Amino acid sequence: MAAGGLFSAPAQADINRALLNDKPAFIADVMRQMTLDEKIGQLRLISIGADMPKPQLIKEIAAGRIGGSFNTVTPAENRPLQDAAVRQSRMKIPLFFAYDVVHGHRTVFPISLAQASSWDMDAIALSARTSAVEAAADGIDMTFAPMVDITHDPRWGRTSEGFGEDPYLVSQIARVSVEALQGDRGPDGKAPIGANGVMAAVKHFALYGAVEGGRDYNVVNMNPMRMYDDYLPPYRAAIDAGAGAVMVALNSINGVPASSNTWLLQDLLRKDWGFKGLTVSDHGAIFELIKHGVASNESEAAELAIKAGIDMSMADQIYLKELPELVSSGKVPMAAIDNAVREILGAKYDMGLFHDPYLRIGDGSHDPADINAENRLHRDAARDVARKSMVLLENRAQTLPLKKTGTIALVGPLADAHIDMMGSWSAAGVARQSITLKQGLQDALAGKGKLLTARGANITEDKRIVDYLNFLNWDTPEVVQDKRKPEAMIAEAVKIAKRSDVIVAAVGEARGMSHESSSRTSLDLPANQLALLKALKKTGKPLVLVLMNGRPLALNWERENADAILETWYSGTEGGHAIADVLFGDVNPSGKLPITFPRSVGQIPAYYNHQRVGRPFTEGKPGNYTSQYFEEPNGPLYPFGYGLSYTTFALSDVALSKNTLPRDGEIEASITVKNTGKRDGATVVQLYIQDVAASVVRPVKELKDFRKVMLKAGEEQVVRFTIDESKLKFHNAQLQYVAESGDFNVEIGLDSKTVKTQKFTLQ
Amino acid sequence: MAAGGLFSAPAQADINRALLNDKPAFIADVMRQMTLDEKIGQLRLISIGADMPKPQLIKEIAAGRIGGSFNTVTPAENRPLQDAAVRQSRMKIPLFFAYDVVHGHRTVFPISLAQASSWDMDAIALSARTSAVEAAADGIDMTFAPMVDITHDPRWGRTSEGFGEDPYLVSQIARVSVEALQGDRGPDGKAPIGANGVMAAVKHFALYGAVEGGRDYNVVNMNPMRMYDDYLPPYRAAIDAGAGAVMVALNSINGVPASSNTWLLQDLLRKDWGFKGLTVSDHGAIFELIKHGVASNESEAAELAIKAGIDMSMADQIYLKELPELVSSGKVPMAAIDNAVREILGAKYDMGLFHDPYLRIGDGSHDPADINAENRLHRDAARDVARKSMVLLENRAQTLPLKKTGTIALVGPLADAHIDMMGSWSAAGVARQSITLKQGLQDALAGKGKLLTARGANITEDKRIVDYLNFLNWDTPEVVQDKRKPEAMIAEAVKIAKRSDVIVAAVGEARGMSHESSSRTSLDLPANQLALLKALKKTGKPLVLVLMNGRPLALNWERENADAILETWYSGTEGGHAIADVLFGDVNPSGKLPITFPRSVGQIPAYYNHQRVGRPFTEGKPGNYTSQYFEEPNGPLYPFGYGLSYTTFALSDVALSKNTLPRDGEIEASITVKNTGKRDGATVVQLYIQDVAASVVRPVKELKDFRKVMLKAGEEQVVRFTIDESKLKFHNAQLQYVAESGDFNVEIGLDSKTVKTQKFTLQ
Repeated sequence: MAAGGLFSAPAQADINRALLNDKPAFIADVMRQMTLDEKIGQLRLISIGADMPKPQLIKEIAAGRIGGSFNTVTPAENRPLQDAAVRQSRMKIPLFFAYDVVHGHRTVFPISLAQASSWDMDAIALSARTSAVEAAADGIDMTFAPMVDITHDPRWGRTSEGFGEDPYLVSQIARVSVEALQGDRGPDGKAPIGANGVMAAVKHFALYGAVEGGRDYNVVNMNPMRMYDDYLPPYRAAIDAGAGAVMVALNSINGVPASSNTWLLQDLLRKDWGFKGLTVSDHGAIFELIKHGVASNESEAAELAIKAGIDMSMADQIYLKELPELVSSGKVPMAAIDNAVREILGAKYDMGLFHDPYLRIGDGSHDPADINAENRLHRDAARDVARKSMVLLENRAQTLPLKKTGTIALVGPLADAHIDMMGSWSAAGVARQSITLKQGLQDALAGKGKLLTARGANITEDKRIVDYLNFLNWDTPEVVQDKRKPEAMIAEAVKIAKRSDVIVAAVGEARGMSHESSSRTSLDLPANQLALLKALKKTGKPLVLVLMNGRPLALNWERENADAILETWYSGTEGGHAIADVLFGDVNPSGKLPITFPRSVGQIPAYYNHQRVGRPFTEGKPGNYTSQYFEEPNGPLYPFGYGLSYTTFALSDVALSKNTLPRDGEIEASITVKNTGKRDGATVVQLYIQDVAASVVRPVKELKDFRKVMLKAGEEQVVRFTIDESKLKFHNAQLQYVAESGDFNVEIGLDSKTVKTQKFTLQ
Repeated sequence: MAAGGLFSAPAQADINRALLNDKPAFIADVMRQMTLDEKIGQLRLISIGADMPKPQLIKEIAAGRIGGSFNTVTPAENRPLQDAAVRQSRMKIPLFFAYDVVHGHRTVFPISLAQASSWDMDAIALSARTSAVEAAADGIDMTFAPMVDITHDPRWGRTSEGFGEDPYLVSQIARVSVEALQGDRGPDGKAPIGANGVMAAVKHFALYGAVEGGRDYNVVNMNPMRMYDDYLPPYRAAIDAGAGAVMVALNSINGVPASSNTWLLQDLLRKDWGFKGLTVSDHGAIFELIKHGVASNESEAAELAIKAGIDMSMADQIYLKELPELVSSGKVPMAAIDNAVREILGAKYDMGLFHDPYLRIGDGSHDPADINAENRLHRDAARDVARKSMVLLENRAQTLPLKKTGTIALVGPLADAHIDMMGSWSAAGVARQSITLKQGLQDALAGKGKLLTARGANITEDKRIVDYLNFLNWDTPEVVQDKRKPEAMIAEAVKIAKRSDVIVAAVGEARGMSHESSSRTSLDLPANQLALLKALKKTGKPLVLVLMNGRPLALNWERENADAILETWYSGTEGGHAIADVLFGDVNPSGKLPITFPRSVGQIPAYYNHQRVGRPFTEGKPGNYTSQYFEEPNGPLYPFGYGLSYTTFALSDVALSKNTLPRDGEIEASITVKNTGKRDGATVVQLYIQDVAASVVRPVKELKDFRKVMLKAGEEQVVRFTIDESKLKFHNAQLQYVAESGDFNVEIGLDSKTVKTQKFTLQ
């Protein structure tokens, strides 16, 4: 590209381009020439706009006091900043530009939890790849993604941002996400990321999803076995897939904040896992070491963080202010600074920025379609992924699919909510570009059927929540609150319902309710929305719920009373079209829940792969003196892996190729799945394994493989899974990763609860 | 005693009485003569009645196949069993008789959680001492108490059975309970327990209160620092106080069931803590190792348990059946059996049973008053403790105390509930002997005032809960369900309310709702009871709530709408009198909550001494991007340590004797507390300390001392606390118990939230 020419300009002469193909030598050469201040400057990651006005910023960059930035988007915005770095700063080290590209950049894809519901790695890769292309074309070098925090607590607002509760499923997703974001890196996987890839900064390292009580930023206390088996695998998978960076979590872990956690950042991440990339703090996290009570002041905070292994300090000046004195006093060894700088420069090298600082900013000749959600290919991709992400929870008497003739009453606060469609962390997505459900239905009906609409209810009438949503320091802090009385809105909705053949009610959570810091104490629909549904139910018209939400909800009344429930999560720019595709049967839904839906907030945690207990509750038996809650039915409302289709599937018994597994051998577990209905459709065949007896208490079952299969009506297919020792391994009390001899149950099903079982023995 | 004579009968000649004053030599001599079968027989602890019919039992005892029993009460019942042991068995080793004497034996004292609310160690000791006297007189040698499991999760049904959430407070209680139960043991504290003492088997070792989700029997996962600082201290305190036995918990801990947990039972309990006594499994726990998935069959279960260090197997035959083969095959070394037998015989020695097997069974000449709750001294003690255990949560416009003239409407399902008054684990208490609130008010009014009564509501109309309560395999599985329609009962209550000057509503939980296995998913009053309260509120009459419950409840409507709320927990045999004493002001309430009351089940865990976080929520500020739940006010409904009085108290500022604490020195923190009201009253001055910055994340504050002070109206008193290094210690990341130099905040208050603060520095 033309921009590359800048790099060979005379002012750059002090960087030895001849060394560019030898990364260690090149970086060593650059570092050799850097002053301490320039090194410390590299450690600073700044949020542009929020943190300082642009003229001052340019000065800071030119002075070599900034290593990277985030929250600036578009080549036009980033070019002058990069100019300041590579033209004005003494060392000419390029900046990198980061951004929270979590589920789409301009074209917004379904939220992560929705994508996980697809159980479709190609779909997830398509989302990540498209996001990377758009972000790169927008001048972005790094995304703070994928977010692979396992959570067992749907109160946590960032449940929406992760991929659910299962370490195996999330690990698969972590891998394909990183690969798709970063793009092709050559035969050895180590070439610099290309012009249409962005570096993945996997987050939040580690265990952020296990915050106590699901309350954001709370502490995490966990024993190591659970860490290693249940929470750490996805981070590891992302790193093994080559993620170039890691964002460190805000929480403490067993009394030590992640940001000052030497065990976490050095022993585990670098020594055990061999991570060679960049670590960045989360927003303000180093300052927060004072709040955690492990540092008395900013100097101590900086010392703890740099020694623990945080390379870049995000959105504060602590490193910049404190490190010079800490180094000169000998409290922080120069080697700690050098390690950090080496990793930062290494990351910039891996982002291709030393080869071309304008690799993604470009010279203005980019195809504008790449950075525009009007790109038809990107839109089609978003629609495709969204359709695959939806989970059909209920469908009584084949209420769905709907006919495209007749009259539909469309009601609910989320029926025409452009902003909410995008979900949280919608990057550079533009709300007005997103297709709402109303638009999607209209487009699908194409004038044949009739659509009546009424809002029916606000998201909530709870002033506390409305205020909170408005408080959120966000790009579009707009909570559209209809000022009419709730009863009046309900009456209007009932009126159109009575004139319709079917009711489609779009209910759920505003996207701000499933967001960072947005921890809930309830999993219920807001009371006013439930009141709307109850009034609609009384009309006797078929009631179809289209849910938009970012966490499992306690859908007790809904389950009993709705004729159909489609979980659409936040389905992105093309969400309205995708939902219409499913509602009208142009697409047969195939999503499966990646997280358990409990019956109430009082049953949390309700994750499926829980450890066994001495007094298990048995469904259908009186629960006294077993492990249960006596006030409610036990077990999930909807289990992990659950999701219906417009067709039906039948499973044969499980066949094992043999009943004894030698240590170096394999067993094939096969099952025949048949589409027994009249429509083509896809389902996910899930393989679970239970260790019957082990040296430590093991989960009741664990997902170990799955296969998404598409079957035509009447078609059947044999699905074969290979089981070897690796699928039986876990971390024992000494944290050795072992498979122990003895019996195992193989369970295969279309959800985690209803399964066919066989037993084998590991020699 | 005459019974002692039996011991010197000819058949006993093989036991060398000459060695009786040398415990190790004596036990060695007994063991020398025992066969393997006799040794294994000693390891069996059997629930008599439940497990086998009496004739068979006598045979088993005579065959030397039972070491101890539980659930038989009265000398008459136990005498023939002991006869079989010491007259018929070859070795003549006496049995011991155990029982769940948790908060009273015949005279039922308030439940443990209530007793903790007194913050009065003399009162708690009085309860334990009285219980021991009654139990011993009833032929009981050992109680499975105190139960000192810390819990942070009020969903857990056994919250009622413990002493709350604070390790310091519960440790104090553990110590006095053990001392009072076991009685005077001579100058060195090692003499056998006397005829009016019983051995304390502290339970449940360990961490049972931390079961995941508050669901009984669930797993416990916890990092060691939290164990050592927050959960283990009370067990340690009980053992340091000389508890003769330990009951092992049913839960697993970090993947290893307590019942097979060598670290727990050997490294921690015996090696680190120096415990020399007896360990018993919980009911059926060894068999449950198969359910936990750490044993494939009973043989493996027995092997794991005996090797881990479980001396006695409760309520199963696993040891009896499996150990002979396990020993002969060499899988279990003889030394493991011998260790267990040594500890069992040692415990029998410590219970005085080798000196006199009939020490507590007696010869029939016992004073019957000792074993009868009609004993006036015992009843007075129960009434006294109950009065001190009640917590006044609200008292608007001095609604309380009530006048003894005028008309009181007494309503609610717990107003005349003999059984529920006793709380769970009511030992040999007899329901009809317990004074209900109705009786208590009648006695207090003595014909002067008028009492109108109406049931108003059942405990619940939820069939699931009613069925569950009836399912409970319990002494009195009676759930009295009024068959009238809820509306009719409410109407009747409203009718009498309108004719009264004040309403007293006794509402809460049936005792079976706060019991083992009775985990709840909600902390609300059952809906029908709340409906009753709402109807009563509409009468405009002053509404006084008398709560009976065994866990924190989410009293949101109640707090806003009741004129007064008195938390009486389950107050025991004399509960009705004690509540009347408080309601009428004959006694000024002084209880303080030993556990936090959250606003909803969705805020759990809400314990006060939580670890600090990087983004703390600040009350009164918008909560975005801080650690909070956005749907509800944050912070507790009622904080730990909270409780009102009929008088008022004022606190001065805190004065410190110096601002720097040398390592070997002391600081005196003093504060003046003044009774600023017109009634005499007691309050609890509470000392909290916060470590400002440490090597690990520390709690926001921790209770380190307290003083219950009685002040006459207008009186003031200086309360002095001594702070030395020991109060500043915690377990660091290496589990060293250390105090780290730096700043500390001293906080003194009458609850954990509203405090006066000073700062000092540890050198």
